[in-house]
Amino acid sequence: MIQGFDPRTGEPAGEPVAETTEAGVSAKVAVAVAAFPAWAGSARRAEVLAAVAGALDANTAELAALADTETALGMERLTGEVGRTTGQLRMFAAELRDGGYLDPVISPAAGAAPDLRRVNRPVGPVAVFAASNFPFAFSVAGGDTASALAAGCPVVAKAHEAQPRTAELTARIVTEALAAVGAPAGTFTIVHGVDAGLRLLRHPSITAAGFTGSTAGGLALARVCAEREVPIPFFGELGSVNPVVVLPSAAQSRGAEIAAGYVGSLTLGTGQFCTNPGLMFVPADSPLPASIADTVTASSGGAMLSARIFAAYQDAVVATAKVPGVTMLAAGKPGEGPWGATPQVFAVSLKEFTAELAREQFGPAGVVVTYPSLDDLLPVLAALPGNLAATIHLDAPDEPLARQLLPVLERIAGRIICNGWPTGVAVVAAQQHGGPYPATTAPAFTSVGTAAIRRWLVPVAYQNFPPELLPSSLR
Amino acid sequence: MIQGFDPRTGEPAGEPVAETTEAGVSAKVAVAVAAFPAWAGSARRAEVLAAVAGALDANTAELAALADTETALGMERLTGEVGRTTGQLRMFAAELRDGGYLDPVISPAAGAAPDLRRVNRPVGPVAVFAASNFPFAFSVAGGDTASALAAGCPVVAKAHEAQPRTAELTARIVTEALAAVGAPAGTFTIVHGVDAGLRLLRHPSITAAGFTGSTAGGLALARVCAEREVPIPFFGELGSVNPVVVLPSAAQSRGAEIAAGYVGSLTLGTGQFCTNPGLMFVPADSPLPASIADTVTASSGGAMLSARIFAAYQDAVVATAKVPGVTMLAAGKPGEGPWGATPQVFAVSLKEFTAELAREQFGPAGVVVTYPSLDDLLPVLAALPGNLAATIHLDAPDEPLARQLLPVLERIAGRIICNGWPTGVAVVAAQQHGGPYPATTAPAFTSVGTAAIRRWLVPVAYQNFPPELLPSSLR
Repeated sequence: MIQGFDPRTGEPAGEPVAETTEAGVSAKVAVAVAAFPAWAGSARRAEVLAAVAGALDANTAELAALADTETALGMERLTGEVGRTTGQLRMFAAELRDGGYLDPVISPAAGAAPDLRRVNRPVGPVAVFAASNFPFAFSVAGGDTASALAAGCPVVAKAHEAQPRTAELTARIVTEALAAVGAPAGTFTIVHGVDAGLRLLRHPSITAAGFTGSTAGGLALARVCAEREVPIPFFGELGSVNPVVVLPSAAQSRGAEIAAGYVGSLTLGTGQFCTNPGLMFVPADSPLPASIADTVTASSGGAMLSARIFAAYQDAVVATAKVPGVTMLAAGKPGEGPWGATPQVFAVSLKEFTAELAREQFGPAGVVVTYPSLDDLLPVLAALPGNLAATIHLDAPDEPLARQLLPVLERIAGRIICNGWPTGVAVVAAQQHGGPYPATTAPAFTSVGTAAIRRWLVPVAYQNFPPELLPSSLR
Repeated sequence: MIQGFDPRTGEPAGEPVAETTEAGVSAKVAVAVAAFPAWAGSARRAEVLAAVAGALDANTAELAALADTETALGMERLTGEVGRTTGQLRMFAAELRDGGYLDPVISPAAGAAPDLRRVNRPVGPVAVFAASNFPFAFSVAGGDTASALAAGCPVVAKAHEAQPRTAELTARIVTEALAAVGAPAGTFTIVHGVDAGLRLLRHPSITAAGFTGSTAGGLALARVCAEREVPIPFFGELGSVNPVVVLPSAAQSRGAEIAAGYVGSLTLGTGQFCTNPGLMFVPADSPLPASIADTVTASSGGAMLSARIFAAYQDAVVATAKVPGVTMLAAGKPGEGPWGATPQVFAVSLKEFTAELAREQFGPAGVVVTYPSLDDLLPVLAALPGNLAATIHLDAPDEPLARQLLPVLERIAGRIICNGWPTGVAVVAAQQHGGPYPATTAPAFTSVGTAAIRRWLVPVAYQNFPPELLPSSLR
């Protein structure tokens, strides 16, 4: 059985939910396979996605209240997150109406060359793994599911163990909405349990998988996909340390503002975001560390999402504290409940910085690295593992340094932020929520924004076909 | 030492070429790494590619004559293939001038959403593995190299063992042309030898690899890429059996024409094409097998490219002949020389068709499968491994059957041909030379056509950047 818990008390949150059996997984994949031709060929997918969004919106209060019992994220955040989730569904509905995702290309016959027409087609039924840190937006009806359904791929989603009842309620609302507008049965189903997730990934009829979660878990699942008889693409978004570089002039002129922004981003959602600014590089002679110490001391932690995440956070900060040369810069007030995390920021000099400190500490913990000069910093940055985001703080006099820094950051991160913070990933067309390995396992793709639909498409070219047999987008 | 051989005689073709040492591979990657920033940032890549094309064109006669000593493909084919190769370089030069490959997307600030701008950037230095069956167009300066250079990625190409001197001459012409127009040193180099190729793939500074070749070799290299500390994308084009389905009306009305087309495609280039029509499905009651038998009997083989390819072909046809239910339909006249292949076509009923017969026989050998009805055929087709191409022959009365067949072919092949043959892959924008695993290891991509450049690009998004720090395509 899968049991959710209330992070405020550590007590069970409602009744447990049954794990999906081997037969259950097979049955859900079988209905997805059966649904594929009709869903892939449906001209009504935009309308259907909009109907699903409407149904979730209509149940926002119930969804947020239930999720709060399993996450303690609070009604304001959860209400907003349902809106983000339905916004994503509507964004993909708009993308379907626009049609650009099909990328039709026509090369008319010319000389010896035949008439060739290429268009993107849905890859087949796909698996989606829900994340616990976004119980809606990256969960069973989150961005992976929305983009895959938009592409024409039926989805079998694996619910996160920490939120079984939120996943059940979400799935019920989505399934009923799909049925009400006449979508094929089997277009969307969910499964529960780690074993069910593994069986799903190994099922020969599953053609691709999306995942948001930990590096260790994601790399293990990536291996499962690679070792199948027919390997499938695994779009894993595994998080990172998202380096922030404060350039000298900005550090001098805006120290207090930068410190406040940093600690706000670091502790947002109790630090449980894959874009959390885990690593900050500041000039060695700047007043920033002192400002940060003051701000961290005044900050408060919160209840983490699960016992497992809390334990991993505790282990991570203990490991960081033991690295030679690392000192504790400051700690905030602990969060409430059995899994209440304490914000903690460590300091180290660039000379004593080691690869160990480039590990993600999932939670409100950061490492501030003091650098003597940009020339010393650049090779250290270039050697960092891949990141979802990197941030520069600069004032006008820092621009020559920024021009040296940018080419390095462009190779270690999928998104670069100027004078802002990496948390808060806007759901817009130009978003790139991806990054070099191991931040993601498929760096050419994104899991947020309209381009997320491309993960579920493969091109097919038609040579010398009569118009009546071509897909309508190619006629 | 790497020794090429003349397929007409089996004798050594010129002097051997030295294998690249471990230090040699490191040195070539090091110059590629050094070249990357300047080449990636160069605004002159179109001009440079055009200059390389011009230099190769100017040396066509010498290139073709040398390649003929190592391949026996003949001056006409080889002269044409140099033209195809320089055509590819010019096509990517045009794509660079067009700029569409950058895919810039701008989402202006709106409400809480920041200004976000995304653009494609070159991934870094890449490795390219040359194929033996196209000594120019898929070799060291072939489509993989042209598309990677266009993307802004320096290339270290691994020459094929069968054509060391052709590769050396090509590389010398390309390198001199690059130097003459001022491209960064290290933009393009080659290495020789299997060990050098493996070292190249494992080098931490190599960021992606392109390969055209055998399934066994390609899957082994794909594993090397996946098992690196930082895995890299492996764009492997591994060939396939490219099923052809002849529908009943076409089989009745155009039997002789289809038989002639089939045998022409099967024996073209002594069958040494990844798009060779290895598997043909014809109605059980049609006159086609008899027509094919006549045409095959009248056909002639040719000299295969190497002793290894010839031996593999012999083994493959022996294995096919041993499959229960398989009979020899007809054989043609043997090719000349020690590696002269004989065209061979086998027959089997759909009932006795097994997965063993869906293995590629690289060479002029085919299997003709007689099917009782399309309903019987569809599940067999659906279970085939992935293919680069699939072909339908149809007359107007076959269209209802074609509508049932197309959705199945769309899932097992990257290109579908109507009333034609799969060999002859046009180099045009709409081309899709890719297909489901194991035809290719990255089915969302293509190795021919303008979209081939996408393999070497990763998107980066810039958030709230001042215009003067943005890439010019995003201002």
